[in-house]
Amino acid sequence: MSYRMSASDLRMGPGHFLTGLRNDDSLLRQVFFSILRHHHPNLAAKVDVIYALSQAWCTSQSDSDFELLVKYVSDLKPEERILVASSFSHMLNLHNLTEEVNSSQIGRAVRLGEMDSPTRDTNHSLLKLTTVNGLSPQQVYDSLCSQTVELVLTAHPTQALRASLLKKYAIVRRELDTLHSKRMSEYEKIETLESIRAAVQAAWRTDEIRRSKPTPQDEMRGGLAYFSTVIFDVVPVFHRRVDTALEKLGLPRLPLDRMLFKFGSWMGGDRDGNPNVTADTTRDVVVLARLEAVNAYFKQVEGLMFDLSMWRCSPELKELAQRIAAAESRDAVRVAEERKRRNYADFWAPIPATEPFRVVLSHMRDRLYNTRQVLHQCLIHPALSVRAALREAGAYEDAEDMARPLQLMYDSLVATGDESVAHARLLDLLRQIRTFGLSMMALDIRQESARHTEVMDAVTRYLGLGAYAGWDEGRRLAFLLEQLQGKRPLMPPGMDMSPEEREVVATFRMLSELPADSLGAYIISMAKTASDVLAVVLLQRETGVRPALRVVPLFETLDDLHNAPATISTLLANDWYRNHINGVQECMIGYSDSGKDAGRLAAAWALYETQEKLVAVAREYGVRLVLFHGRGGTVGRGGGPTHMAIRSQPAGTINGHLRVTVQGEIIEQQFGEKEVCFRTLDLYTSAVLEAALDPPPAPRAEWRALMGQLAADSCDTYRSVVYGTPDFYEYFMQSTAASELGRLNIGSRPSSRKQGGIETLRAIPWIFAWTQQRLHLPVWLGIGEALEAAFSKGHQPVLQDMYANWPFFTSTLDLVEMVLAKADARLSAFYERTLVEPRLAHLGERLRSLLANTQSNILIVVRKSALLEGNTPSQMSTPNLDEKIRLRSPYVAPLNVLQALSLRGLRRFREQGGDGVEYNPSDPEIIDLLSRDPKASRWRAAGAAAGGEGGAQQPQQPQHPYQAAMDDCLMITIKGIAAGMQNTG
Amino acid sequence: MSYRMSASDLRMGPGHFLTGLRNDDSLLRQVFFSILRHHHPNLAAKVDVIYALSQAWCTSQSDSDFELLVKYVSDLKPEERILVASSFSHMLNLHNLTEEVNSSQIGRAVRLGEMDSPTRDTNHSLLKLTTVNGLSPQQVYDSLCSQTVELVLTAHPTQALRASLLKKYAIVRRELDTLHSKRMSEYEKIETLESIRAAVQAAWRTDEIRRSKPTPQDEMRGGLAYFSTVIFDVVPVFHRRVDTALEKLGLPRLPLDRMLFKFGSWMGGDRDGNPNVTADTTRDVVVLARLEAVNAYFKQVEGLMFDLSMWRCSPELKELAQRIAAAESRDAVRVAEERKRRNYADFWAPIPATEPFRVVLSHMRDRLYNTRQVLHQCLIHPALSVRAALREAGAYEDAEDMARPLQLMYDSLVATGDESVAHARLLDLLRQIRTFGLSMMALDIRQESARHTEVMDAVTRYLGLGAYAGWDEGRRLAFLLEQLQGKRPLMPPGMDMSPEEREVVATFRMLSELPADSLGAYIISMAKTASDVLAVVLLQRETGVRPALRVVPLFETLDDLHNAPATISTLLANDWYRNHINGVQECMIGYSDSGKDAGRLAAAWALYETQEKLVAVAREYGVRLVLFHGRGGTVGRGGGPTHMAIRSQPAGTINGHLRVTVQGEIIEQQFGEKEVCFRTLDLYTSAVLEAALDPPPAPRAEWRALMGQLAADSCDTYRSVVYGTPDFYEYFMQSTAASELGRLNIGSRPSSRKQGGIETLRAIPWIFAWTQQRLHLPVWLGIGEALEAAFSKGHQPVLQDMYANWPFFTSTLDLVEMVLAKADARLSAFYERTLVEPRLAHLGERLRSLLANTQSNILIVVRKSALLEGNTPSQMSTPNLDEKIRLRSPYVAPLNVLQALSLRGLRRFREQGGDGVEYNPSDPEIIDLLSRDPKASRWRAAGAAAGGEGGAQQPQQPQHPYQAAMDDCLMITIKGIAAGMQNTG
Repeated sequence: MSYRMSASDLRMGPGHFLTGLRNDDSLLRQVFFSILRHHHPNLAAKVDVIYALSQAWCTSQSDSDFELLVKYVSDLKPEERILVASSFSHMLNLHNLTEEVNSSQIGRAVRLGEMDSPTRDTNHSLLKLTTVNGLSPQQVYDSLCSQTVELVLTAHPTQALRASLLKKYAIVRRELDTLHSKRMSEYEKIETLESIRAAVQAAWRTDEIRRSKPTPQDEMRGGLAYFSTVIFDVVPVFHRRVDTALEKLGLPRLPLDRMLFKFGSWMGGDRDGNPNVTADTTRDVVVLARLEAVNAYFKQVEGLMFDLSMWRCSPELKELAQRIAAAESRDAVRVAEERKRRNYADFWAPIPATEPFRVVLSHMRDRLYNTRQVLHQCLIHPALSVRAALREAGAYEDAEDMARPLQLMYDSLVATGDESVAHARLLDLLRQIRTFGLSMMALDIRQESARHTEVMDAVTRYLGLGAYAGWDEGRRLAFLLEQLQGKRPLMPPGMDMSPEEREVVATFRMLSELPADSLGAYIISMAKTASDVLAVVLLQRETGVRPALRVVPLFETLDDLHNAPATISTLLANDWYRNHINGVQECMIGYSDSGKDAGRLAAAWALYETQEKLVAVAREYGVRLVLFHGRGGTVGRGGGPTHMAIRSQPAGTINGHLRVTVQGEIIEQQFGEKEVCFRTLDLYTSAVLEAALDPPPAPRAEWRALMGQLAADSCDTYRSVVYGTPDFYEYFMQSTAASELGRLNIGSRPSSRKQGGIETLRAIPWIFAWTQQRLHLPVWLGIGEALEAAFSKGHQPVLQDMYANWPFFTSTLDLVEMVLAKADARLSAFYERTLVEPRLAHLGERLRSLLANTQSNILIVVRKSALLEGNTPSQMSTPNLDEKIRLRSPYVAPLNVLQALSLRGLRRFREQGGDGVEYNPSDPEIIDLLSRDPKASRWRAAGAAAGGEGGAQQPQQPQHPYQAAMDDCLMITIKGIAAGMQNTG
Repeated sequence: MSYRMSASDLRMGPGHFLTGLRNDDSLLRQVFFSILRHHHPNLAAKVDVIYALSQAWCTSQSDSDFELLVKYVSDLKPEERILVASSFSHMLNLHNLTEEVNSSQIGRAVRLGEMDSPTRDTNHSLLKLTTVNGLSPQQVYDSLCSQTVELVLTAHPTQALRASLLKKYAIVRRELDTLHSKRMSEYEKIETLESIRAAVQAAWRTDEIRRSKPTPQDEMRGGLAYFSTVIFDVVPVFHRRVDTALEKLGLPRLPLDRMLFKFGSWMGGDRDGNPNVTADTTRDVVVLARLEAVNAYFKQVEGLMFDLSMWRCSPELKELAQRIAAAESRDAVRVAEERKRRNYADFWAPIPATEPFRVVLSHMRDRLYNTRQVLHQCLIHPALSVRAALREAGAYEDAEDMARPLQLMYDSLVATGDESVAHARLLDLLRQIRTFGLSMMALDIRQESARHTEVMDAVTRYLGLGAYAGWDEGRRLAFLLEQLQGKRPLMPPGMDMSPEEREVVATFRMLSELPADSLGAYIISMAKTASDVLAVVLLQRETGVRPALRVVPLFETLDDLHNAPATISTLLANDWYRNHINGVQECMIGYSDSGKDAGRLAAAWALYETQEKLVAVAREYGVRLVLFHGRGGTVGRGGGPTHMAIRSQPAGTINGHLRVTVQGEIIEQQFGEKEVCFRTLDLYTSAVLEAALDPPPAPRAEWRALMGQLAADSCDTYRSVVYGTPDFYEYFMQSTAASELGRLNIGSRPSSRKQGGIETLRAIPWIFAWTQQRLHLPVWLGIGEALEAAFSKGHQPVLQDMYANWPFFTSTLDLVEMVLAKADARLSAFYERTLVEPRLAHLGERLRSLLANTQSNILIVVRKSALLEGNTPSQMSTPNLDEKIRLRSPYVAPLNVLQALSLRGLRRFREQGGDGVEYNPSDPEIIDLLSRDPKASRWRAAGAAAGGEGGAQQPQQPQHPYQAAMDDCLMITIKGIAAGMQNTG
C-alpha cells in the first residue's frame, strides 16, 4: 500500500527577518513621505505615483508599464526632476540602511543563539574546524596565533555621500537599531521616533551634491575618524571575544604579543595621478594620525590611573615606581604646578609610591602630553623634521617604550594574583599598542613608475651619462645595479629639475624625516620592469631614507601581469637585491586596469596565474612572497563577499597572512559602527583561519587548460568589441555619462589622462559609466562567447564541474551573475533610445544580445533557471540577495530614467547654446534651489587649458537655470544609482 | 445565613523586586567571597563565621548570640581585624549599590509601565494635579513655567569613599544594571560578569584609607566631573521629557527661556573654618568651571555643525551668514591655516555661505576656542585678571552672546518648517546655555562674620576712630550706614594687617576681578546682627566688587535664629538698604549648629518659626524673601527624603522657588549616573510643583502652642544632659571616636575650634561621633521627655492629630523614627562596656533609658507597635525601609564591635606607651599591610602646638605596628559604619 509525499510548504525561520526588513522599510518610508508631504505636498503625490508605476513595472516587466513610467517622468518640470531625483535617492539610502540594521539584527540574533548563523564567524569556524574537520584544538590555536590580517584603507574615489549625510543616516541607523533591541517606555519610544524624524528631515533639507572638491586631508580625517571612534575600541573587544571562545574550547588565551590585525592607509600617500598629494600632504597625514593615536592612548592611561589604585605590586614595579616617585618629589611643587598648567582631569599632586601603578602611569601621561605637544608643533611649523622633533622632547617615539612599563604592570598584577584586573583595561591597552603602535596605521606611498624614470633621466643627462629614458632595460639594470653596489652619491645638491621631478625627490626626502613606524610600503603603480623597482631602491638611498621602505611593484595591465613573474625573477636572480629584501618580496596585484583592456574573465585568470607563478618564482629563490590584494568597492573593481574572495585565491598565496585594501564606501559599511566593525574583524579572521586550515582544493589540469581557453576567447571578444569596433567609443560617450563624470567632484584625483579613445580613460570612470547605465558591460563582455565556444567543444559538463568544485571559478561566475542580476537591458536600451544617434543603434542591439547570450550561458554552467535562484554557498545571506535587489529596483529605475533625460537635456542645451529652452522660474524658492553652487560665479582665468584643473568646462556666466537644474539632477541621479548598485554586507 | 470573610494573604507586586534585591545581593556577595577566598582563604572562613554569627544575632537579638559574636571578633589578630573590617566595609558598599540598582530597576519598571510608581515623578504629578486636584492643565502649566529649583553642591565633609573606589563601584553598578536590562548572548554575559569581578577585585585590593588630605581643587574637580559627565547632558533630556508629558496633556512645550533648574557650588568658595581656601583657590575654581563649560559647548557646537547642513534659512540668518562668510573669505588662506593650527576635527576650509548654519557655527567655534585659550592663560598666569583677559581676546564673556545666534538659527528652522530639526540638538544646546551659562555654576562665597569684624576693627583703629570690635551694635550700625551713604573711601592702600585680615581683603579684591556670572551669593556664617551684613556690603564697595554679590546671612545657633527676624527687620527698616537689595532679601538657615546646642526638635521648631517670622517681616516691608536651605547629608544634619522635606516647609516659604544645598555623599547618590540624575531632577520638579499648587495645610493654633512647649521641654532636657551633667563630656570622649576623628582626613577643613568642652566641638564631628556608636543621641535626646510631659497634660490625641495632619510634624517625627530604627542600644552599651570607666557607666544607663523612653513615646504618637512598621506616606519606597535596614545590619554590627575594640587597643597603647603589647609580625605581607601610610616617616616639628595641624598627636618614629594596625582598622570601621548608616534612594 503506497502513498505520495507532500512537502508542507510553510517554512519559518529567517523569514521573519524579511518582514523585519519590510517593517523598517515601510516605517522609514512613512517618515520620509510625511516630511515630503509637509514641505512639498504636490510633489509627494507625484513621487508616490512614480514609485507605484516603477513598482508595477519592476514586477510586471511589461513594455506598457515602462512607457507609462517614462511618459510620467518626462512630464516633470526641471525643478521637479531635481526634487524627485532627490526623493528617490533619499529613499534608496534609507532603504539601504534598513538592510544594514536588518543584518545587524541577524548578527545579534545569532549571538543570542536565537538562530543559527548564516555567515561564518570565528567562533563558528573554531567549532567547525575542531569538530567537522577533525583538527585538534591545538592545531587551530597555533594557526590562529600565527595569522595576521592587514587592512589598508584607501580613499573613496566614488564615495557618493557627503560626510554630513553619512552622519545623519548613521543616526537613523542607530536609533532604528535601538528601537529593535532596547525595551523602552512609551515616552522613550516617542522621543526615539522624533529623533529619527529630525535626522531624516535634516538629511532631506541638506544639499546632497558636494559643491567643492575634498582635500586629501579631508579624506584623511574621514578615514581617521573611523579609527578613533570605532576601530580603536573594537579591536581589543574582538580579541577578548576570541579569548572567551578559545577558553570554551579549553584553549589558552591569545598570547599577548600576537595581534590578529594590522592597519594601513593610502590616504595622503597615494599620489598616483593625484597631483595635489604632495610631500607636505604626506607629512600632515602622518602627524595627524600620530596625534590621533596619542589622544587615544592618553584617555586610556587616564582611565587606568583610576583602575589601578592598588598598593601591592611586584618588586620590579615597586623599584620603578620608587625611582619615579623619588624623582618627582625632588621638586614636587614644580611638578604639581606643571600638571595644573596642563589642566589634567585629576591627579595633579605627585602620587605617593604607595600607589605604584599610578606613579608609573602618571609619568606615562606626562610623556604622552609632551608627545602631543611636539606633534602639535610639527603641525604648526611645516619645516620641523618630525623625527628629530620627537627625539629631543623626550616624547614617545617607539611603541615599545610605552608597552614595557605596561607589561611590567601586567606581570605585577599576575604575580600578586590579580589576573582579573590584569585582563581588564590594561590588557586592552597593551593590545591596542601592539596593533596600532604610535602611528595608528602605516601609510603606504604610491607613485607611477614613469615619474621615477623621468627623475633618473634628468640625473643621467645632468651627469652627461646619456638619456636614461632612452636606454633599453638591460642597460638600465646594469647601471642601477652598479650604482646600488657602489657607494658614490649620484645626485648632486641643487641640480636643476622640472617641478614634477622636484616633487618626486621632495617626497623621498620627506620620507627620510618621518618616523619609520608611520610608513608602510612604497608602491610603484604601472610597474613594468625590474628597473622600475631598482630605480626606487636607488632613489631612496640617494635621499637617505633609512630604514628604506619595502618597494612593492603593482602590476596593473594584462601585459605587465603576464611578465610579472619574469620581472620578479630578474630581481630575485640578483644576489645583492635578494639580501637587500632579506627574504621577503611583496607584490601588489589589482585588476581594475587589466579588467579595462581585457575584460573581467581574462583579468581574473591572468591574476590567478600570475599569483601562482609569482609564488613559484619566489619559492625557487627561497624568498617568501607576500601578495597585496587591491580589492575594489563595487564588483566591477573586484569587490564581492570577503569570505568567498579569500577562498578563491590560489593555494599558497594567503597562508595565514592577508594584506588587502578596503576602499570605496566599503569602509563605511565595514567599519561605520562598532557592531558592524566587530563582525568585519570576525569575518576576516575566520576566513583567513579557514583558508589556512581547510584550504580549497587545487584546480585540475583540464580545468586550467579550459580556463586559459575561456580567458583567451573572452579577451578576443572583449577587445574586438571595445577596441575593434569603430564608433564603439562614440557609442560609449553618447550612451553614458562618462563625459560628464569629470565634473562630479568625488575623490581628489582627476578622471582621465589627456584626450582621445578608451585607452585613455582610467578604469574607474570606465566601469562607473557602464554601471550607471545598467549595462555593466566591463564585467561580462566576452564571457558569453567564451562559454559558447567551450560548449560547442562539449566542455559543458567540465564547466559545471569547475563551477561546483573550484572556488576560484565559483566566485568569478557568482560575481558576474550578481552583476547580471543588477543589469537591466531595458533601461540600457532606454539610454540608447534617448541619447544615441540612430546610426549607432545597431551597436546597442549587439551589446544587449551579447548580454542575453552571456546570461543564458552562465545559467547553463551554474545550473539555474533564473539568476540568483536558490543560493549556492557563496551568496548565502538572509534575506537573500535577489530579494534585496528586487526590493531596491523600484527606487533605482526612476533615477535611471531621470538621468537619461537630464543628459539629453544638457547635451541639447549645449549644442544649441541654450536657445529653444525658455525655462525661467520666478519663484524665489526655485531660484534658491538652482543657485546652491557657490562656484557658479567665478571669473574666466587666464592662460591655456591645463590638465590640473579638474575637468570643469568653461561655464558661461551666470549659469542658465535650465542648465543648473539638469546639472543638479544629473549629479543626484549619479549618487542615487551608485547607492542602488552597491551591495551591502 | 451569615458567613465569615477571609482576606487571601498572598499579595504579589513589588515583592519580586525584593527577590531581585536579594539575588543581586547574593551575586555580589559570591563574587566578593570568591575573591576573598582566592587571596586569603583562611580569612574568608572567619568572615563567613562572623557574618553568620552577626546574622544570627540580628535576627534573634539574644545576649548569648551577641556575646558569641564579640568573643569571636576579639580573638582576631590585629592584621586580621584590618582585613575583616575591610571585608565588611566592602560587602556593605556592595550591598548599598544593589539597593541603588534595585531602585533604578524600579524606576525603569515604572517608566515601562510594568508597575505603578512608588515615588512621585513629574509626569505623575502632572496627572495627579490635573485629575485629582481638579486644577486645569493651564494652571499647572503656568505654575511649572514659573518655578526654578536651584541646587547648590557643597564639599563632602564626610565623603567616606575615595574617588577611585567610587569609580569601581560605579562600574559594578553599571554592569549589574546592564545584566538586568539588556539581553545578552552567553559570551557577553561572561564578559560582563568578568568585568564585575575585575572591578570588585580592584576595589578590594585598593587601600581604602585616604592617606592625604584632598585639596579644595580636588574637591572641585570631583564636583565638576558630575557636571560634565552627567548633569550637563541630563538637564536637556529632562526638559524634553517634560515637554513630551505636557504634550500628552495637550499643553505646549516649556517656553525656551524658562529653565527648571539652576546650579551653584560652595567648592572652593566656602572658607568658613577652612584656611586653605584662599583667594587664589576661588579664582582657580571659577576658571576651571568656565573651562569645563566651554569644553562642553565646544563639543555641542561641533555636533551641530554636522547636523545643520541645510541651505535654506531665514533672511536674518542669511544676512548674518553672509557677513561672516564675506569676512572670512577676505583672507581665506589665513583662516584655513589658523584652523589647521587648531587641529579642529573637521571643517578647516572657510565654509561657503550656501551653508549658512555652518558659517555661523564655525564662527562660534572659533570664539569658543579663543575663550578656552584665554581661560587657559588665566590658569597659567595667576596674576591675569580673568574679567579683563576675557574682554580683550574677543572671548565669550556673556552667555547671551552665544544664545543670540543660536536663537536666530532656531527661529530660522521654525520659519522654514524645519521644527523637528530645531527641536533636536539645537534646542538642547539653547537650554544648556540658559541653565549653565558660561560659568557652569554660580560659586557662593562663605565666610565667618567674626573675620569681617576683625578687618573693620583693624581699619577703625588705623584711622584712629576707635576699636570697632568694642563698639556696641548701635554704634556699628550708625557708622556703617554713614559710610555706606557717603562716598569717601575708607581703606587707605597699604595699611598693614594681620595675614588673616589681609586674606579677607584679598578675597574681596579677587571677587572684583572675576566674571560676575561665575559668582552667586556671599554667605556670612555665624551671622548674628544687622551690622554683620552691612559690614560685608561696605567691604564689597571698598574693594570695588561690581556688581556686588547679594549678601546672605546664615543664622546657625538657636539664639541667632530667634532674633533673626529682628536682625532682618533692622536691615529692611533702612531705606538705603532696601533699595540696595532692590526688593529681594535672601537668608540661609541650616541647623547643624542649632541642633548641637538645643537638640533636634528645638532646632527644627526654631527653624520653622524663624522662617515664618522672616516671611512676615519681609512681607511687612514689601520685600520678597528667598530662603536658602542647607540640607545635611545624613539625617543628623537635616537630610531625609526630599519630597517630604519640601512639603514640610511652612507655607509661603517655597512658592515655586527652591534653593537648597546638596551635600555629602548625596551628590554621588543623586547625580552619580544619568538614570539617577534624571530621577533626581524629576523628584525636585514634582515636589516643588506640588508644594506650589497643593500646599500643605497651615498648622492650627493649639498645635503651635503645643509644639512650642515640646521644643522648650526637649531643649531643657537636652541641655541638662549635654551641658548640665558633669562628666557628660568625659563620657562622650571616652565612649565615642570623637577624639580620633580629627585624624580622618575627610574633607578639607579642621574638625574643631580650639580646645575644651562640647561647645567647642563643631556640629559635624559631634553628630558623626554619636552616629558611629549607634546611639544617635543628638537626634532624639529630649524628645521623649517632652512628649511625656505633653502626655501627662492629656495632649496625646492632639499629638497624634498633629502627626497625622501636619507635614512638618510628620516629617520631623518620621526622621527621628528612621534614626531610632538605626540606633542600637545594645551596641552602644558595648562601646561603654569596652571604653568607659565604670564610674561613668551610670550615665550610659541613663542615656539608653532616655532612648527607650523616647522610642516608646514616639511609637504612641505615630500609632505603631514597632518602628517603621507599615508605611506612612513619607517612607514609601519599595522594598521598604526597615527591610533595607535589616538587610544591612548584619554587615554593620561586626564593624561596631571592631571599632570599640580598636579604640580600646589604641587608648591602652597610648597610656602605657606601647609596652605590654608584643605584636611584631615578621610576615612581609603583613608588614606591607601596616605601612601603607606614606606620611608615617616625618620628623618631629619644632615649637608650640599650632591650630592648623589637624589634631594628630606626636607619633613616635617609626609607628609601632600594633598602633598602625589599630589605626587602620579604626579608619576602615569609621568609613564602613558611615556607609551602613546612610540612607539610599
